[in-house]
Amino acid sequence: MAATLDFYFEFSSPYGYMAATQIEKLAEETGLALRWHPILLGPMFKAMGSAPLTQIPLKGDYALRDFKRSASLAGIPYSQPEPFPIATVAAARAAYYAIQNHGAKAPGLIKALYHAYFADGRAINDAGVVLDIVAQQGLDRAEFESAIASDPVKEGLKKEIEDAMARGVFGSPFMLVGDEPFWGFDRFDHIRKWVAAGQKA
Amino acid sequence: MAATLDFYFEFSSPYGYMAATQIEKLAEETGLALRWHPILLGPMFKAMGSAPLTQIPLKGDYALRDFKRSASLAGIPYSQPEPFPIATVAAARAAYYAIQNHGAKAPGLIKALYHAYFADGRAINDAGVVLDIVAQQGLDRAEFESAIASDPVKEGLKKEIEDAMARGVFGSPFMLVGDEPFWGFDRFDHIRKWVAAGQKA
Repeated sequence: MAATLDFYFEFSSPYGYMAATQIEKLAEETGLALRWHPILLGPMFKAMGSAPLTQIPLKGDYALRDFKRSASLAGIPYSQPEPFPIATVAAARAAYYAIQNHGAKAPGLIKALYHAYFADGRAINDAGVVLDIVAQQGLDRAEFESAIASDPVKEGLKKEIEDAMARGVFGSPFMLVGDEPFWGFDRFDHIRKWVAAGQKA
Repeated sequence: MAATLDFYFEFSSPYGYMAATQIEKLAEETGLALRWHPILLGPMFKAMGSAPLTQIPLKGDYALRDFKRSASLAGIPYSQPEPFPIATVAAARAAYYAIQNHGAKAPGLIKALYHAYFADGRAINDAGVVLDIVAQQGLDRAEFESAIASDPVKEGLKKEIEDAMARGVFGSPFMLVGDEPFWGFDRFDHIRKWVAAGQKA
């Protein structure tokens, strides 16, 4: 059985977006079994006394520059969205529901939601926009509209976030190879080397 | 005239240490003119309301793991020092004075100070240990002992830190290629690509 690559991502995270465009390729290259996990950073930032990057003095301006440059150097389309960051609970619930119930279409939906926000500037904090994208991916709008308002989906996502924190996840993107933690799009190369070295360093 | 590579580093920073072992190679590869700048993170963290990585809940444990793994994957000797982090004002002043007055020996001294702390576990928060390393590098112990207690060196380092903050520097390692900012040892590859692409992205 292949070792697992658990991929944790928040829809308002630029580096999460970049990672989502490349994670399937990374899983293929390394032979790891990919599992997608939408999360929300709010509860994690609360635990750390942290804040979104762009709201931190000095670091904020740099972050905006690094988002754009990191995407450009990796050949990924990127246009800094406004407003930023946004609430992504509707998008995260839709992704969570898709992973549970429409596994084959879930990665396409996740990538489409990210692209809508970070390349096309669409307001995915709006549940209506999320449902438009759901429909564009050939999924049932009414089914998802009902799902993202349902208690099992709300509770399921909440539990996903609690489980992630229990495993040490605190940011986006965050990858666990087995139980080995890697934080950031800039750690993809470490994952490659880690796997190539027999999963030790 | 070659574009400049301004390299900012704090002696208590693990990624700063790793960067210091590779920065001359990076300058050679890219044809950039390297300039070394010791800084202290204390005043920068104060401006950002930030704290040393290892003191942040959740992030702290990960950071310790990533220090060790990053060094191992890059083939750099690393042994997590205790205590950590430490006050590095004596080391920073010695490095500042060496850069101003003994330019040819300054990079060797800087790398020796870093190696002493992060590979050999020597207490470079102790001015006596800093001066021992100064002497081991063929520099004059008494001259440096007097220099690091002198007002021009104290004021000079303070101004170096103020100038760095005015240029947007907020962490370690921090590199400016011309005026383009790069934060982190994990941005060395971005610098290579940035220079190869004609210094744009």
